[in-house]
Amino acid sequence: MNILNLDDFSVEQIEKILNLAEEFKNGKKVDYEGKKVISNLFFEPSTRTHYSFDMAALRLGCKTQNFDSGNSSLKKGESLYDTVKTFEMFGTDALVIRHVENEYYNQLVGKINIPILNAGDGTGNHPSQSLLDLLTIKQEFGKFEGLKIVIVGDIKHSRVAHTNIKVMQRLGMTVYISGPEEYKEEGYNYVELDEIIDKVDIVMLLRVQHERHSTSMQETVEEYHKAYGLNKQRVDQMKPTSIIMHPAPFNRGVEIADDVVECEKSRIFKQVQNGVYVRMALIHVALEENI
Amino acid sequence: MNILNLDDFSVEQIEKILNLAEEFKNGKKVDYEGKKVISNLFFEPSTRTHYSFDMAALRLGCKTQNFDSGNSSLKKGESLYDTVKTFEMFGTDALVIRHVENEYYNQLVGKINIPILNAGDGTGNHPSQSLLDLLTIKQEFGKFEGLKIVIVGDIKHSRVAHTNIKVMQRLGMTVYISGPEEYKEEGYNYVELDEIIDKVDIVMLLRVQHERHSTSMQETVEEYHKAYGLNKQRVDQMKPTSIIMHPAPFNRGVEIADDVVECEKSRIFKQVQNGVYVRMALIHVALEENI
Amino acid sequence: MNILNLDDFSVEQIEKILNLAEEFKNGKKVDYEGKKVISNLFFEPSTRTHYSFDMAALRLGCKTQNFDSGNSSLKKGESLYDTVKTFEMFGTDALVIRHVENEYYNQLVGKINIPILNAGDGTGNHPSQSLLDLLTIKQEFGKFEGLKIVIVGDIKHSRVAHTNIKVMQRLGMTVYISGPEEYKEEGYNYVELDEIIDKVDIVMLLRVQHERHSTSMQETVEEYHKAYGLNKQRVDQMKPTSIIMHPAPFNRGVEIADDVVECEKSRIFKQVQNGVYVRMALIHVALEENI
Repeated sequence: MNILNLDDFSVEQIEKILNLAEEFKNGKKVDYEGKKVISNLFFEPSTRTHYSFDMAALRLGCKTQNFDSGNSSLKKGESLYDTVKTFEMFGTDALVIRHVENEYYNQLVGKINIPILNAGDGTGNHPSQSLLDLLTIKQEFGKFEGLKIVIVGDIKHSRVAHTNIKVMQRLGMTVYISGPEEYKEEGYNYVELDEIIDKVDIVMLLRVQHERHSTSMQETVEEYHKAYGLNKQRVDQMKPTSIIMHPAPFNRGVEIADDVVECEKSRIFKQVQNGVYVRMALIHVALEENI
Repeated sequence: MNILNLDDFSVEQIEKILNLAEEFKNGKKVDYEGKKVISNLFFEPSTRTHYSFDMAALRLGCKTQNFDSGNSSLKKGESLYDTVKTFEMFGTDALVIRHVENEYYNQLVGKINIPILNAGDGTGNHPSQSLLDLLTIKQEFGKFEGLKIVIVGDIKHSRVAHTNIKVMQRLGMTVYISGPEEYKEEGYNYVELDEIIDKVDIVMLLRVQHERHSTSMQETVEEYHKAYGLNKQRVDQMKPTSIIMHPAPFNRGVEIADDVVECEKSRIFKQVQNGVYVRMALIHVALEENI
Repeated sequence: MNILNLDDFSVEQIEKILNLAEEFKNGKKVDYEGKKVISNLFFEPSTRTHYSFDMAALRLGCKTQNFDSGNSSLKKGESLYDTVKTFEMFGTDALVIRHVENEYYNQLVGKINIPILNAGDGTGNHPSQSLLDLLTIKQEFGKFEGLKIVIVGDIKHSRVAHTNIKVMQRLGMTVYISGPEEYKEEGYNYVELDEIIDKVDIVMLLRVQHERHSTSMQETVEEYHKAYGLNKQRVDQMKPTSIIMHPAPFNRGVEIADDVVECEKSRIFKQVQNGVYVRMALIHVALEENI
């Protein structure tokens, strides 16, 4: 089955995936003994998501193909559908796809007959990232209902934020947003970071996407850090039980101070760790067509 | 043994390879249990051929190394022979090589002591592509003798065309060529596409290689499509039993109309599928030194 | 355990690693049965070292991840530590790292809790290359004590030279250096190549690193070849038992004449072969935390 958009999954299904991921964390073994091949098709640069999915597949005893869009027929003008159909014809067992276009998968669904796992579409969805965030929150608080989170940064360009806001609200969390005026989108609950920071359970920072922003970051970096960056002073305002999250990669000294990255409240590297367990669960669910 | 050029193989040997490929299609199992490593050395961009060979090796239970010529010692000026010899010294079991130079393998033969599988040399040979074309034709018609094919497009720059014309004639097929004046080569049987299209069993289209052609494609794309592109009207002229082939990647709207790619007569994606079976056969033959 | 710098290893430990490599050469089998994953992180181009480590891991029954720094989050400004920590969090079993910065590993040691194998740091260390050189010498002469070697070329920019000079002196070898004035460094035993060539057991050539040198190589190539290149005439001056080594990739016609590369005295491709055995030993030692 496809894993494209968390909207397609009920709360119960999401809980099942998280439980399966937790089981993998606790040592559950599934071994496809090299009989399954997972093809990772990344049409946009990625370290974390790409190699996390790759590791998840390897730990399940799958083989992997890693497609480098920089050195390929895409330069020969091939469409996304034609490339993806080609991999289906190779007989691969599942596809992990990242692509710059929002909801790229709409052009594939119904025409591709093997499971597709969405590893990020444009500024739209990033289901595996969202699920690993949820797993990290669940491990910390044991529940979602009633939790308060502030997501800080460039909401507009963040598929992580878009995916998380929707699913967290469905799970009964209260989601606040903080960030520069220029990245604001309609319909969200905007707050001043310094007014909410002592009231939330989770501060989730977003990466400042230098490569998308053409503004001179020379001065705005400092301004951004002052206005929205999580530094020690702000960490000291947080509740004793609250935690810090970031989808990474992060910019030290921009959205997060260097000495906050691995501070006691930070779950940033734990998120990375959970990412592999979540992706093992997703690949397993996709291959078994069952959740 | 090496698989470099179909001229080196008798018709009987070619039939044996096709039969072996068909057996793999029908479920034949060969499992090298991770004891064999296949190194894919691609000095020219490729999606289809590269990942098809990779998949074939994985399905045979081999491990693979995928060498990216974009990020390597080649930038340090190393010769092809020296790179290939290096991989031999690593102890790999077979090499799959694509290189821009025609008959690059002549500088390797007799000096490299492990099997080399030619994945395409310049505008010269592309044996695995030709064999998958033949397999597709055989599955369709059960024979080669007496079949008529028209190959349409840029013959001059096409290793697929060069390889197919020779081997198809050896197999008793009649090969017609159609395409722009500028790509004509001596010694072929040139015809007007619209005069032959209702008489052939196979229409094989070649990709318009934008990246090789410096002419302004802005206007020639339309002209090309009008003169040589396979559109619905031309498909309607074809015999009821005839089929459409293309080595891919294809340019929708140039050599093939969008709605023809997956029409009933098209075997384009079936060719891709057959490619993995043919390459399983070739790797097996190369490793076993036996055909 | 980490394999970062040969200074960290006693002569006895170095001998043990070489013996283990020799055992792998003689058919010793270790099979991790796919349970171990080795992640190769190359932040600088490499063919030889990268694919040699990869092959070594595959031959040990490990799975591998091959990280391409050209297509990654590094473009998003991530620090080396953050990338490496991320792979640790993925749960990989060991990291093979090449990086342009001298002693990059100092920023990792004590913070990363899985074995790191240094595949080359800037102009500093290249322990696996040095060990394969030592293995090749040991196979030839059965000892190190009393052997004389001349290392020829750009010592200044060569991590191979820096690593070899130190360890060879510890092993009781006499190390002479020859090369252009501009690449001289303090503290070495400089000699004229033509005065020492008939007295040494090993002539080790270094690659002229075109990509690092901005001088016009049009004329200096010829001058370099004349002054320091190993040609047939110089080979004829060498002792009957002496051998030629080069870490490769080599520039034919620059530091080595075309017809010398595979002459009887050359051990250049044997070095490549030994590289895989040495790296099997290193990965095994790193994973077992035992030497």
